[in-house]
Amino acid sequence: MLTEPPHHLTPEEFREAGYVTIDWIVDYLAGIEDQPVFPAVEPGQIRASLPDAVPEVGEPIEDVLADVDRLIAPGITHWQHPGFFGYFPGNSSAPAVLGELISAGFGIQGMLWSTSPACTELEIHVLDLLVDICGLPDRFRSDGPGGGVIQDSASSASLCAVLAARDRAGGAAVLADLRVYTSSQSHSSIEKDVRVAGFGAHQLRAIDTDGDYAMDPSALRAAVKADLADGLIPCLVVATVGTTSSGAFDPLPEIAEVAAGAGAWLHVDAAWAGSAAVCPEYRWILAGLEHADSYVFNPHKWMLTNFDCSAFFVADRKPLLDSLSVVPEYLRNTASDSGEVIDYRDWQVPLGRRFRSLKLWFVLRSYGVEGLRAHIHHHVEAASELAGRISANPRLELATPVSLALVCFRHVDGDVAGENLLTALNATGEVLLTHTRLSDRYVLRVAVGGSRTTSDHVGRLADLLDDLA
Amino acid sequence: MLTEPPHHLTPEEFREAGYVTIDWIVDYLAGIEDQPVFPAVEPGQIRASLPDAVPEVGEPIEDVLADVDRLIAPGITHWQHPGFFGYFPGNSSAPAVLGELISAGFGIQGMLWSTSPACTELEIHVLDLLVDICGLPDRFRSDGPGGGVIQDSASSASLCAVLAARDRAGGAAVLADLRVYTSSQSHSSIEKDVRVAGFGAHQLRAIDTDGDYAMDPSALRAAVKADLADGLIPCLVVATVGTTSSGAFDPLPEIAEVAAGAGAWLHVDAAWAGSAAVCPEYRWILAGLEHADSYVFNPHKWMLTNFDCSAFFVADRKPLLDSLSVVPEYLRNTASDSGEVIDYRDWQVPLGRRFRSLKLWFVLRSYGVEGLRAHIHHHVEAASELAGRISANPRLELATPVSLALVCFRHVDGDVAGENLLTALNATGEVLLTHTRLSDRYVLRVAVGGSRTTSDHVGRLADLLDDLA
Repeated sequence: MLTEPPHHLTPEEFREAGYVTIDWIVDYLAGIEDQPVFPAVEPGQIRASLPDAVPEVGEPIEDVLADVDRLIAPGITHWQHPGFFGYFPGNSSAPAVLGELISAGFGIQGMLWSTSPACTELEIHVLDLLVDICGLPDRFRSDGPGGGVIQDSASSASLCAVLAARDRAGGAAVLADLRVYTSSQSHSSIEKDVRVAGFGAHQLRAIDTDGDYAMDPSALRAAVKADLADGLIPCLVVATVGTTSSGAFDPLPEIAEVAAGAGAWLHVDAAWAGSAAVCPEYRWILAGLEHADSYVFNPHKWMLTNFDCSAFFVADRKPLLDSLSVVPEYLRNTASDSGEVIDYRDWQVPLGRRFRSLKLWFVLRSYGVEGLRAHIHHHVEAASELAGRISANPRLELATPVSLALVCFRHVDGDVAGENLLTALNATGEVLLTHTRLSDRYVLRVAVGGSRTTSDHVGRLADLLDDLA
Repeated sequence: MLTEPPHHLTPEEFREAGYVTIDWIVDYLAGIEDQPVFPAVEPGQIRASLPDAVPEVGEPIEDVLADVDRLIAPGITHWQHPGFFGYFPGNSSAPAVLGELISAGFGIQGMLWSTSPACTELEIHVLDLLVDICGLPDRFRSDGPGGGVIQDSASSASLCAVLAARDRAGGAAVLADLRVYTSSQSHSSIEKDVRVAGFGAHQLRAIDTDGDYAMDPSALRAAVKADLADGLIPCLVVATVGTTSSGAFDPLPEIAEVAAGAGAWLHVDAAWAGSAAVCPEYRWILAGLEHADSYVFNPHKWMLTNFDCSAFFVADRKPLLDSLSVVPEYLRNTASDSGEVIDYRDWQVPLGRRFRSLKLWFVLRSYGVEGLRAHIHHHVEAASELAGRISANPRLELATPVSLALVCFRHVDGDVAGENLLTALNATGEVLLTHTRLSDRYVLRVAVGGSRTTSDHVGRLADLLDDLA
């Protein structure tokens, strides 16, 4: 006699627990404004409250759900709270949650076309749909040499750009001579990606920015020229459309010219701002993108789609595949050998991959182009109103012009007053803001963009600023 | 007047659509055995059936769900079908799906402790619980210098081991002199990770294996010795516990001795087999693990937890953080600066991260230790019965002794007969097998381990083999 398999939930038990879970989420979200955005917990407090061993015998699923409510939810930083203005918001929506749920229910793995044809084909499809609705260059469509892929984060996507650029320029054999260029305001993930790829710190050139914190193309030109004169190989330029600290836009046309002149790969990181391109009037931020070799933006930041959903495009997939394709016998199959299919494991670092395109497809269809545009417009307009309120407050001053829906400001009394203001704002529990430094001065950031954030919530923040500044 | 925000589903609409989605999943899984494991679709066929544009105005969520049923499900390779014996199975279970659902509902981001304390603390907790229930060495617990983290895949986790080892040995400055060792049977992700990290192909030594396809420690010793004599720096040895092709177990004690003698990092990849350690009688596969610097296994392969859930442990977190920590101003916060918390973004390549520990916690509690053990035992015993049936079949022969629940066999008439048998088996729609090559001969693999796979399904495969071989 064999050991019996474990008891799995019966279909009816699964259905019942599923309904309970849906109810719990709907109620959690409906009541989220009653919670402080950041939980009042000390390090270690949540963990100390958890059952300290795995039970010998399984527990009813209802008990686990009850513990989520009792032990976990009180320790959550509520990213879906409409007063969340920190970092860049993580978007979420009912359609995206249901897409994630279907994906979990399928329980498939999309590493190869043959390991689930619909997973690969829907992903190709939604990435092409993003090209359509965001007015991206045709070179990023899948029907030519280029195409798109969903990755977990812009960090991972940019790493793939670094790898493709590194290897196109000669790879490990010439690694010590390669140089990478990005602005001093680019995201920390670029520094991390370059380090991961085996470069030393001195091989990454941090290019100066202008008064608006955008890359100075003349400084880039000078750095590239000096390196070429030293016999070094500029392999990659990373430009940012909407920097994390202040939403600065690097001038792509001038940067592209320098990159092209040096034979370097041009990667454009629009992780946050890229979603705004769904509105034609904001597409100026992507002027020059037609010269880029790769491009990334995150629908999980501002396109109503749950993390993780980072859309990465290349103009030519060959260098990417040259860097990332390793084909052992146990992954070979007729479809792959035919060359007629895309195997997305060759477009990313990990082998395994979730069925991420479903949630994005749910969002695109449920909101439609109109809904996606309204989401962006509403936030940009609310941020503009907030900037007006801040400008009118004699204790505050804008640190930079408002950038789409990102508002950066200082306290006129200096850094300590700014830090105290941030602490006081966050202590209300009604809002969560984060900070940065610009020109070595302490700056508060308001990233308007949460799925549930409306102008009313932004107005409430303005009131708090009036009270607390 | 501001632009109105988009219409979001109301709580009642969300609840209703959520119930419908749960129903769909429950019904999909209940009827999965009626589907062929691999869908009868041609490349491009699914995509051609999809609506070719994003609608201007949003569509009812019911329409999108209906299209999942009508257009997507017919193109899925059904990994949750109990006849799925390919690759290694991807586990899934009702508790894991509900954990994923809660995670999607929270919509939070666990990059820092402060971006959701409960996310970080539950993750620390469940990784320590895995140490408990799998009898892993104490050095991997979070209360010392080591600890665990959940990554998306063993590929990504092993990349982190490569990076930590590379940088501990001197990093970019000495990169050209570094050497990495793994067996010729190790997973392709190791080759890919090493390449990602900036190593040239010649810097990865593929060590020969013995007759059972396990790494030959004397060959490792010789390679390390030769490299040391040449002034090179052995920085990393990657051992595999349960190889992908045949489930071979590299001899950890001997390998650890060589690694220690050379000052190299020892990383152990037990992506598939590691889950078996929940059963004390199979823990011999991890003998010697107490000497490893890092270890990875995938609960998403054989511990009833949905992909992505790869458990990565280090004996000392410092080299990992030295490699992966980059702290820009906009991510600084009081809790991180205090040094009292873990910020998991420093334990992985990407910055952003999902709340993955919930689904694993749901599984551990819902099944209990007994249930997890029954899951493993049942499959190991069923695989053993299958191996008996194959041995009794004069047309077939085992290619290696059965390894836990992995059965590898050949057709006695040679490679072409083996390929034809695989095609015939998969054409039944009742099962899906994949192949490999061992000693340059074509080998069929049966990886027993699907969440819904029972001895009855394995018995049915044995019957098909009798019929078709």
